[in-house]
Amino acid sequence: MEPRIALDAMSGDHGPAVIVPAALHVLSTNDDIRLVLVGDQNILNEMVGKQPDHIKRRLFIHHTTQVVAMDELPSSALRNKKDSSMRVAINLVKQREVDACVSAGNTGALMATARYVLKTLPGIDRPAIITALPTIKENHNTHVLDLGANIDTTSEQLFQFAIMGSVLTKAVDNISNPRIGLLNIGQEEIKGNENIKEAGRLLANSNINYIGFVEGDDIYKGIADVVVCDGFVGNVALKTTEGVAKMISHYLKQEFNKNILTRFAGLIALPVLNSLRHKIDPRRYNGASLLGLRGIVIKSHGSADILSFSQAIREAIIEVKKNVPTRISDQLATLLGEKRRDG
Amino acid sequence: MEPRIALDAMSGDHGPAVIVPAALHVLSTNDDIRLVLVGDQNILNEMVGKQPDHIKRRLFIHHTTQVVAMDELPSSALRNKKDSSMRVAINLVKQREVDACVSAGNTGALMATARYVLKTLPGIDRPAIITALPTIKENHNTHVLDLGANIDTTSEQLFQFAIMGSVLTKAVDNISNPRIGLLNIGQEEIKGNENIKEAGRLLANSNINYIGFVEGDDIYKGIADVVVCDGFVGNVALKTTEGVAKMISHYLKQEFNKNILTRFAGLIALPVLNSLRHKIDPRRYNGASLLGLRGIVIKSHGSADILSFSQAIREAIIEVKKNVPTRISDQLATLLGEKRRDG
Repeated sequence: MEPRIALDAMSGDHGPAVIVPAALHVLSTNDDIRLVLVGDQNILNEMVGKQPDHIKRRLFIHHTTQVVAMDELPSSALRNKKDSSMRVAINLVKQREVDACVSAGNTGALMATARYVLKTLPGIDRPAIITALPTIKENHNTHVLDLGANIDTTSEQLFQFAIMGSVLTKAVDNISNPRIGLLNIGQEEIKGNENIKEAGRLLANSNINYIGFVEGDDIYKGIADVVVCDGFVGNVALKTTEGVAKMISHYLKQEFNKNILTRFAGLIALPVLNSLRHKIDPRRYNGASLLGLRGIVIKSHGSADILSFSQAIREAIIEVKKNVPTRISDQLATLLGEKRRDG
Repeated sequence: MEPRIALDAMSGDHGPAVIVPAALHVLSTNDDIRLVLVGDQNILNEMVGKQPDHIKRRLFIHHTTQVVAMDELPSSALRNKKDSSMRVAINLVKQREVDACVSAGNTGALMATARYVLKTLPGIDRPAIITALPTIKENHNTHVLDLGANIDTTSEQLFQFAIMGSVLTKAVDNISNPRIGLLNIGQEEIKGNENIKEAGRLLANSNINYIGFVEGDDIYKGIADVVVCDGFVGNVALKTTEGVAKMISHYLKQEFNKNILTRFAGLIALPVLNSLRHKIDPRRYNGASLLGLRGIVIKSHGSADILSFSQAIREAIIEVKKNVPTRISDQLATLLGEKRRDG
């Protein structure tokens, strides 16, 4: 079966101007998928324009009349935007018209709507946001969750995040037994709060490949495949990463632009700098999953460009092909079965 | 009066091998200070060796017999290491033999000992760890606290951190009215927990220059002079920063070492890369303050080298000259007075 993906075509900082070209790009490089653009058909039809047959027959437009604003409150989106591109894209997942949806819309509204429409998997209290980050190890990513869907998480929720992260990483990165670390701070005696300690105990007694506490810098060392944390902490870690990377890149540019000599050096070093840029390009890591739902929902960065949004669509394709939600359910059922036998 | 600083000469990853040369370096570049090396006099005397008179008369050795191990539990250090270089250096602050102390020893033990010996200032529940971080703005730092001394902080404690951070930044960076941001995450409806919201209300009603919530990436944007957060979150942000910076520097080196052409490019670009390295060199930012104590205690990174430890000593000198603890007390007294009038 060809994976079918719905795209919330009206959301994000750039809306259809980025999402339509990204859809066309992904269709032209993936023969075996179908995409549904959800949004205003007048705008979308015009943007799609004339396309060759092999693209056209796999691209559909689903008309909707509303858009969720980037700063709209989740509660308002839920109440007042029942015909929004975001809501309808998620409805299509619920109705099994598509296998997944991708949105660059506002995270709070997307999470609330997805949770309301799709519901969580049995055994999961709350969905979590997960993404891959690059590490110092060649061809290795660390998946980090939760990135901001939940604050004040309980030990049981952290444990559920670990299971979901393990299943996703196994499926997406083909790692047979992903190493799971719990994000903590370094001081022995006050190490973590009770929730984290208890989550550590739950993980140590499970069939998860739990490697213990890790610290913020370990995210980038490649010593864990999944790092589990509260959403507040994960969000700060992610945003801090963005801030540091931008600052370094700013100073790099500034230093190379200082005078004619440094500009010459910059010219010589350009291929190397481009190669570095490619390696840590955040666009290559776009596409966070909302894990724990009865369906696949991928969140793209709001400011995503074409390359970046295409990557988010690709993430959706992989999760569909690997059947991530069913795998999470199965793993949970196994673990809950184990628990029942143990108790 | 010449500032007198005690150095815990036996702690840190390198102990006296780094701390003695750093002390000599700082003495040779600062005419108006005195340093006390606290530790084993046999080792220290030998390491100091022959020195010119203008150095010798400002360098003192205070003999102690014990050392707090880098992985020693704070409770064990408190109980069993009463003649440790760390404890005695702090005792000298308490006894007003010196104006400040600097230690590269283990953070937990240093914090516990400093708190036990010196006590907190009136109106301060718990001390906090603060350090300066570089930003995208030329010649601007953001001070961030708490970096790991406190977890599960209350709104009142966050408020106290803001006051302490404001006073320190005013004193150290000569900023007349530092802009204070509260670290939070970006989603409107679940924005922060109750503690953070309440801390925001307390700050909005104070004479602090409170600019509202900021996110992780804002630390490096230079839009706030002080960023206030819980110690768990601050520690993760700091460690994440270290991890990202190391990863980027690793890939930069790797890319320039790929082949003979890139190595040539690296050679040409070397002055530029060195200038960048200097700009964001973490050693230039070494020296975190333990704020809120009745005395000045500076924590150096455990792995500090000579340049780096010298910077921590310089931080101590500035805080002594600016009389930071007294300023914090005064500011607190003013604010508490205001509150009483308001209530």
